[in-house]
Amino acid sequence: MSEEPIKTDVVIVGAGPVGLFAVFELGLVDLKCHVVDILPRAGGQCSELYPEKPIYDIPALPTVTGQELTDRLMEQIEPFGAEFHFNERVDQLERLDEGFRLTTDGGIVIECKVVVIAAGGGSFTPKRPPLPGIENYEGKSVFYSVKKIEDFRDKDVLIVGGGDSALDWSLNLQPVAKSLTLVHRRDQFRAAPDSVNKMFKLVENGDIKFELGQVTELHGDDGQLTGVTVKAPDGKTFEQEANAMLPFFGLTMKLGPVADWGLNLEENLIPVDTEKFETSEPRIFAIGDINTYAGKLKLILSGFHEAALMAQKAHEYVYPDKKLTFQYTTSSTSLQKKLGVK
Amino acid sequence: MSEEPIKTDVVIVGAGPVGLFAVFELGLVDLKCHVVDILPRAGGQCSELYPEKPIYDIPALPTVTGQELTDRLMEQIEPFGAEFHFNERVDQLERLDEGFRLTTDGGIVIECKVVVIAAGGGSFTPKRPPLPGIENYEGKSVFYSVKKIEDFRDKDVLIVGGGDSALDWSLNLQPVAKSLTLVHRRDQFRAAPDSVNKMFKLVENGDIKFELGQVTELHGDDGQLTGVTVKAPDGKTFEQEANAMLPFFGLTMKLGPVADWGLNLEENLIPVDTEKFETSEPRIFAIGDINTYAGKLKLILSGFHEAALMAQKAHEYVYPDKKLTFQYTTSSTSLQKKLGVK
Repeated sequence: MSEEPIKTDVVIVGAGPVGLFAVFELGLVDLKCHVVDILPRAGGQCSELYPEKPIYDIPALPTVTGQELTDRLMEQIEPFGAEFHFNERVDQLERLDEGFRLTTDGGIVIECKVVVIAAGGGSFTPKRPPLPGIENYEGKSVFYSVKKIEDFRDKDVLIVGGGDSALDWSLNLQPVAKSLTLVHRRDQFRAAPDSVNKMFKLVENGDIKFELGQVTELHGDDGQLTGVTVKAPDGKTFEQEANAMLPFFGLTMKLGPVADWGLNLEENLIPVDTEKFETSEPRIFAIGDINTYAGKLKLILSGFHEAALMAQKAHEYVYPDKKLTFQYTTSSTSLQKKLGVK
Repeated sequence: MSEEPIKTDVVIVGAGPVGLFAVFELGLVDLKCHVVDILPRAGGQCSELYPEKPIYDIPALPTVTGQELTDRLMEQIEPFGAEFHFNERVDQLERLDEGFRLTTDGGIVIECKVVVIAAGGGSFTPKRPPLPGIENYEGKSVFYSVKKIEDFRDKDVLIVGGGDSALDWSLNLQPVAKSLTLVHRRDQFRAAPDSVNKMFKLVENGDIKFELGQVTELHGDDGQLTGVTVKAPDGKTFEQEANAMLPFFGLTMKLGPVADWGLNLEENLIPVDTEKFETSEPRIFAIGDINTYAGKLKLILSGFHEAALMAQKAHEYVYPDKKLTFQYTTSSTSLQKKLGVK
């Protein structure tokens, strides 16, 4: 890529509630942000894991769903015009004289003065089923997500799992697949009842095959699956043909490439001070669930506080000669102007 | 008083937003609270100084007035049934074996295991005008508030100031006073335009006398005012008769009796650690604007965070043998039960 890198004041890694509120606090002190998130939308765990589930401990919001919290924060930071890069993971961090050059897995290059890691539990990564040799098949005939439905046309597709992803993809791939088999270890599903009903109708019609059991072995050559062994609840095993498999065992959190940025780490968390929430590396801050310090609680409201204190020090890095005067949004017309208050 | 003292787990001094949210965080860990505030209602500075003014930096509430913030927090803490003692100031703190006995100026006695000071800038106190000897007149012929309108019947009343209190009391006392004179240093007012208009109509009718200027001297004997010297904007001075004066120069914050509780203080702030926000005295915590630590910002959202971390340690004092397991409101049915979620 020979494109000019993007230049900005601050890159925030993670668009969860704490990353979003960091845009607000940095905006109040005139810092411009780009936000990078591996997920396809803002909200982080809140939107990904419990968009409809109420949260009760956000101050002054007696109940709020993850999605509503995200929407409210997006509205609040709107005046600051942060730029978002979704579906991107920051892979490389190079040190520059006064800042960093970041490169995402999608090839976006951003140069900035300050990096704020607000990556929650880390990067969302699909859970790998405990099947010997599965890594040889990954990306060839075993997939953890569907990039293009057409890739599964005329395939003998095996889907494993009982959650929304397993059910939704069973319904969506059935029309193009040569055959579609859903394997789940029990006959209860953690998925929308409507999807479960639709699936069972297709099973009745003979369009989907449903098997109770657990996949215990993969068979194939050179990464090309030919079939699997399934162990039924009664302990008996049988073979199931398949040339494409999609295991949906949920997402897990991994620290991801951040682990390679030379920061001190403690059990996959990033230790910070409680004055500015800076890591062992100057100009790199960590806020929200990913950091640790004496007394730390993994609460969204703590991440908000951490964002506010971080912004003061970030300002010092970007504008070393300007002194910040602490102001209140209630009384400062200059802050209100930034917020677009009329 | 021979009444039995009230017994509770925690006394929170201050019913501002941070004191209110402390009820929530303490409630989540099963601690019962009594809240004492010198003001007549919940909300602290928010309700007292800017009930109608929008606040823009409460996370996920893009704009919220002080009153609405208070109302939302009152709704959020409702499940925990905290008891409020308004119009009361905690004057005395005595140490007991495992806790404290607090006594308010109104004679309420509460015994508790933990004290949380969430007193914001301290106690609201009327500002005293810089007039030599004014303390001799206070409570006799100089008053900072009106307890009973009848006390001013047939008096030559002098009101000083240009805010809402000065204007409102000019209008309310004029009918009973023998004469009413309003003195303000300029002809602009920080008061409701409607009150200003009404006042000027009464001036036109000769019912109120308005003088531009500043009171520079008090005259009288034994605390009984007979008149004051007023310096007009042109520098000339004149005498104004008065046997009662009400200066309305706004409210100021004083630390108040908290200063005598044996805590380490730094310029009227209470230093705390950032792990549990405990003061130099075990079992006494300080959260919100009244505390100080490296990086401290006087933000409501920081007080929320401080309340959450404080509650963990408070629980340890009240239940030394019970281990707290950290839980999320989103997923813990036991927390949801406490919150009355159905």
